[in-house]
Amino acid sequence: MTELVLVRHGESTANRDNTYTGWSDVPLTAVGIAQAHQAGKRLRATGLQFGAVHTSVLKRAIVTANIMLSEIDQLWLPEYKTWRLNERHYGALRGQNKDVTRQEYGKAQVQQWRRSFYTVPPLLTPAELDHDRRYTKYGAAVEPRGESLKMAYDRIMPYWIDEIAPRLLDGQNQLVVAHGSTLRAMIKYLEHISDTGIDGVEVANGVPICYHLDRQLHVIGKEEY
Amino acid sequence: MTELVLVRHGESTANRDNTYTGWSDVPLTAVGIAQAHQAGKRLRATGLQFGAVHTSVLKRAIVTANIMLSEIDQLWLPEYKTWRLNERHYGALRGQNKDVTRQEYGKAQVQQWRRSFYTVPPLLTPAELDHDRRYTKYGAAVEPRGESLKMAYDRIMPYWIDEIAPRLLDGQNQLVVAHGSTLRAMIKYLEHISDTGIDGVEVANGVPICYHLDRQLHVIGKEEY
Repeated sequence: MTELVLVRHGESTANRDNTYTGWSDVPLTAVGIAQAHQAGKRLRATGLQFGAVHTSVLKRAIVTANIMLSEIDQLWLPEYKTWRLNERHYGALRGQNKDVTRQEYGKAQVQQWRRSFYTVPPLLTPAELDHDRRYTKYGAAVEPRGESLKMAYDRIMPYWIDEIAPRLLDGQNQLVVAHGSTLRAMIKYLEHISDTGIDGVEVANGVPICYHLDRQLHVIGKEEY
Repeated sequence: MTELVLVRHGESTANRDNTYTGWSDVPLTAVGIAQAHQAGKRLRATGLQFGAVHTSVLKRAIVTANIMLSEIDQLWLPEYKTWRLNERHYGALRGQNKDVTRQEYGKAQVQQWRRSFYTVPPLLTPAELDHDRRYTKYGAAVEPRGESLKMAYDRIMPYWIDEIAPRLLDGQNQLVVAHGSTLRAMIKYLEHISDTGIDGVEVANGVPICYHLDRQLHVIGKEEY
């Protein structure tokens, strides 16, 4: 049996302010830092030894991962940071308050933007792209103008196939510290949740979810710490 | 011109207690954490953008690196952790107080253990090896029973050749956060210091040393921040 642990980063300033974030690189709040320590302590209590940790190129996930590695005394683990585990890109909604968008566009529209699998948020214009060098080093192909959960799912899966699954198949437990939407995409895959069923899945900040996997990486058990 | 920045970790509990450390995985002190922040702030003032950071598998270097990445707002950088950048292994001296060994073995012997290029410290017995999984994953070949600076130099150079130099040649600035002896080895190489000349080289905790390199990676300038 191999263990896959998924953790959503601790509370960020955008979580606190109830705004859409996506690829904006916002920091953790003091609450978020405490949640990361708590998540690490809970993981330490399991005694799990990991082979590697995977996270996004966004600091709220990276800092959560580093705090957790410190708490489980496995800071020396290989740590892989990839844009493929970034939060879903919220397009032109980024930085907007969720309540304000509800008033402006209606509850149903906002619910669809936030939870439906296929709905794409209003896109950024090309002029609004960040051109951050962490993405431009791949050329123009990487930075999106907005993503549905489906689009995020499609860019996460190559990373799962190439980098996470082979290490699990090799018998190494893996830790993934990422974001609400990207973890929903992975949970959808692991639990075979339908395109409509994924609407109801929420992932709490800083609560480790442990999947027990068999040798074909089928889920044979799940626990939350 | 490409920039290579070398930084020794902040003060560790072993630095504070004046004991030999080597591969023992001791944490930073509060002073060491402050030094790491200070080193990061000094690096931020240069505006340097890096392609990657390289560090050891010892937490005093990893935590220093993470604090510095946070201060320069480049946490997203690829971070490579390798046993090849570990501190020189001090063999049976590890955990011993430097003043006590001076009384026991004499000043000249201790100076030779600490600063000479070729002198090997008293070795651990095979039974005293740690068998830590961060090393045993490579088989029995990696964990030494004690190293001269020459032995550390010889296991650092393959990493320089394979992982650091190609990125510098590609025009990417590189940050190396490591240990006193391993940085002395790299400085010996970069500055063509003789086997006897390296005796006098000391590296302070948390002071970034920046080498300006030409396209053949020759040193054309050096600054300390």
